Amino acid sequence: MKVKPLGNRVLVKKLEEEERRTPGGIVLPESVKDEKAIKGEVVALGTSEKFEVKEGDKILISAYSGTEIRMGEEKYLLVKTTDILAIVEE
Amino acid sequence: MKVKPLGNRVLVKKLEEEERRTPGGIVLPESVKDEKAIKGEVVALGTSEKFEVKEGDKILISAYSGTEIRMGEEKYLLVKTTDILAIVEE
Amino acid sequence: MKVKPLGNRVLVKKLEEEERRTPGGIVLPESVKDEKAIKGEVVALGTSEKFEVKEGDKILISAYSGTEIRMGEEKYLLVKTTDILAIVEE
Amino acid sequence: MKVKPLGNRVLVKKLEEEERRTPGGIVLPESVKDEKAIKGEVVALGTSEKFEVKEGDKILISAYSGTEIRMGEEKYLLVKTTDILAIVEE
Amino acid sequence: MKVKPLGNRVLVKKLEEEERRTPGGIVLPESVKDEKAIKGEVVALGTSEKFEVKEGDKILISAYSGTEIRMGEEKYLLVKTTDILAIVEE
Amino acid sequence: MKVKPLGNRVLVKKLEEEERRTPGGIVLPESVKDEKAIKGEVVALGTSEKFEVKEGDKILISAYSGTEIRMGEEKYLLVKTTDILAIVEE
Amino acid sequence: MKVKPLGNRVLVKKLEEEERRTPGGIVLPESVKDEKAIKGEVVALGTSEKFEVKEGDKILISAYSGTEIRMGEEKYLLVKTTDILAIVEE
Repeated sequence: MKVKPLGNRVLVKKLEEEERRTPGGIVLPESVKDEKAIKGEVVALGTSEKFEVKEGDKILISAYSGTEIRMGEEKYLLVKTTDILAIVEE
Repeated sequence: MKVKPLGNRVLVKKLEEEERRTPGGIVLPESVKDEKAIKGEVVALGTSEKFEVKEGDKILISAYSGTEIRMGEEKYLLVKTTDILAIVEE
Repeated sequence: MKVKPLGNRVLVKKLEEEERRTPGGIVLPESVKDEKAIKGEVVALGTSEKFEVKEGDKILISAYSGTEIRMGEEKYLLVKTTDILAIVEE
Repeated sequence: MKVKPLGNRVLVKKLEEEERRTPGGIVLPESVKDEKAIKGEVVALGTSEKFEVKEGDKILISAYSGTEIRMGEEKYLLVKTTDILAIVEE
Repeated sequence: MKVKPLGNRVLVKKLEEEERRTPGGIVLPESVKDEKAIKGEVVALGTSEKFEVKEGDKILISAYSGTEIRMGEEKYLLVKTTDILAIVEE
Repeated sequence: MKVKPLGNRVLVKKLEEEERRTPGGIVLPESVKDEKAIKGEVVALGTSEKFEVKEGDKILISAYSGTEIRMGEEKYLLVKTTDILAIVEE
Repeated sequence: MKVKPLGNRVLVKKLEEEERRTPGGIVLPESVKDEKAIKGEVVALGTSEKFEVKEGDKILISAYSGTEIRMGEEKYLLVKTTDILAIVEE
C-alpha cells in the first residue's frame, strides 16, 4: 500500500518520538511541540515539478500544518511543501 | 439517477467504514477520522479539462473538505479537486 | 411578475420537499439538509454570457449558498453559478 | 437636495413596506426580510461607466448589503452594483 | 497647523451635529448614525493623483470608515477615498 | 545604537505626551488616543526606494498600527509607510 | 547538527535575555516583549536569492512572528524575512 501526494504536497512521517531521545540533538519539549514545531521525515513527494526537499530529508514544520493520517503504527502528515520550515542535517 | 459535478469538483464515495477492517492497510481511528483525513473513491469527475485523479481512484481528503450528499444508503462528497490530498494505491 | 438574476447568478426553485418522497432517488434527510446540500431547479439564468447549467436543470448547492426569496407559496434562491456543485440527472 | 453615489454604487429606495400589500406579487415575510432579501427601487446611479440597472428598476438585494441613510420619511441604501441580486419585472 | 492626508486618503470634517437641525434635509437619527452613515465635508485631499471629490464637497461615509482625530473643538476623519459613498448636493 | 527599519517600514518616535500640552494644536484626548489616532515623528526610513515622508516629519497613524519598541525612556513604533495617515505641519 | 531554513525564511536565535542587561541599549520590558517586539540574531539564511539581512545581524521581529524550536539550551525562531522589522546596529 502506497500514498501518493498530489500537487505540491509531500508525505511526512512524524519523528519526534524517536528524536526526543537523541543526545545533543534538537529537543522539542512537550510544551513547544504541542504549540510550535515538529520534526518529520519526507517519505514521498507530490506531483508538482519542483520541490526543495527530497525523500529521506529530515524537516521541521509547524505543528498546525498538514493533515494527519495513520498507517499501521506510524503517524504521517500530508503537508504543502510551502509549509516546510527547514531541513535538519545531522 | 446520476450526479454530474461541475467545474473542478469530483464526486467521491466515502469508504472509511469498509476500509477500517482491511488488515495491514490505512487505519483511520475514530479520533483522527473526525478531525483529520478520510478515505474515499472517485466516482465522477467534473467539467474542467484537467484532473490529477480518475474514476475509481482511492483518495484521501481532509474531513473538513467538500459538501455531503446521500444516495440510497451511501454517503458521497462533492469535493474540489485541489482539496484532494493524495491517491492511495493498494 | 418575473425575477431576472444579474451577473453570474441563477434563480433556483427549492425542490427538496417534493424530492424527499421520490423512491430510489437522492434522499436528503433533515440533519444533512440543514447543514450540507440542498436540491433545486434552475428557473432563470443571469446576464453573464456563459453558464454550465440551463433552465430546467436539477442541481445541488450547499445549504449555505445564495439568498432566499419567496414568490407565492414557493421558496427560491439567488445563487452564484460558481456555487452550484453538480447537476442531477434522472 | 440630491445624493450622488460614487464609483459603482447606486442609491436605492427601500420598497418592502408598500410591496408587501401587492396582491400576487413577491411576498417577503418578516422573518425572511430581516435575514435574507429586500426589495428596492434604483433612484440614482454612481459615477462608473457601466451599470446593469437603470433608474426606476425594481431590484432585490441581500439584507446585509449597503449602508442606510434616511431622507425625510424614506429609507435609502447606498449599495455596490455587484451586490444587486436581480431585477424584478411586473 | 495643517493636516496633509497621504495616498488616497482625504481629511473630512464631521458635520452631522449641525446638519441634524437643517430643515428639509437629510436627517440621520441617532440609531442610524451610530451604525450606518455619517455626513462630512472634505477639507483636504491626499497625495494621489485622482479624486472623485474636491475640497468643500459634502459627503456620506459609513460610520465604520476612517480614523478619528480632533483639532480644537472639531472632530475630523482620515478616510480612504474609496470609502466615500456619495456626494450630497443642496 | 541605531535601529534601521527594513522594507517599507519607518521608525516613529511617539509624541503624544509632549503634544498634548501644546496650545492651539491637535489635542488627542485619552479616549480617542486609545482607540483611534496617535502622533509621532519619523526618525528613520526603511530600505525601500520611495517614501512619502522624510525624517523629522510629524505624522498621524492609527493606534492599531505598527510594533512597539522602547529605547531608553522613549517609546518607538516600527510602522509600514502605507499605514501613515497624514503629515502634520505646524 | 544544522538547521537550513527553506524559501524566504531565516533562522533566528533569541537574544532578549542577554540584551536586557546591556546598559544604554534597547530595553524590552516584560510587558512589551510579551506583546510586541523581540530581539534576535540571524544565524542562517534560507534558500531564496535575496535577503536584506545577513548572518550575524541583530534584528527586531514581532513577538507574534515565526515558529519556535529549541536546540540544546537555546531558543530559536524560523521567521519569514518579510516579518523582520529592523536591523539593530551597536
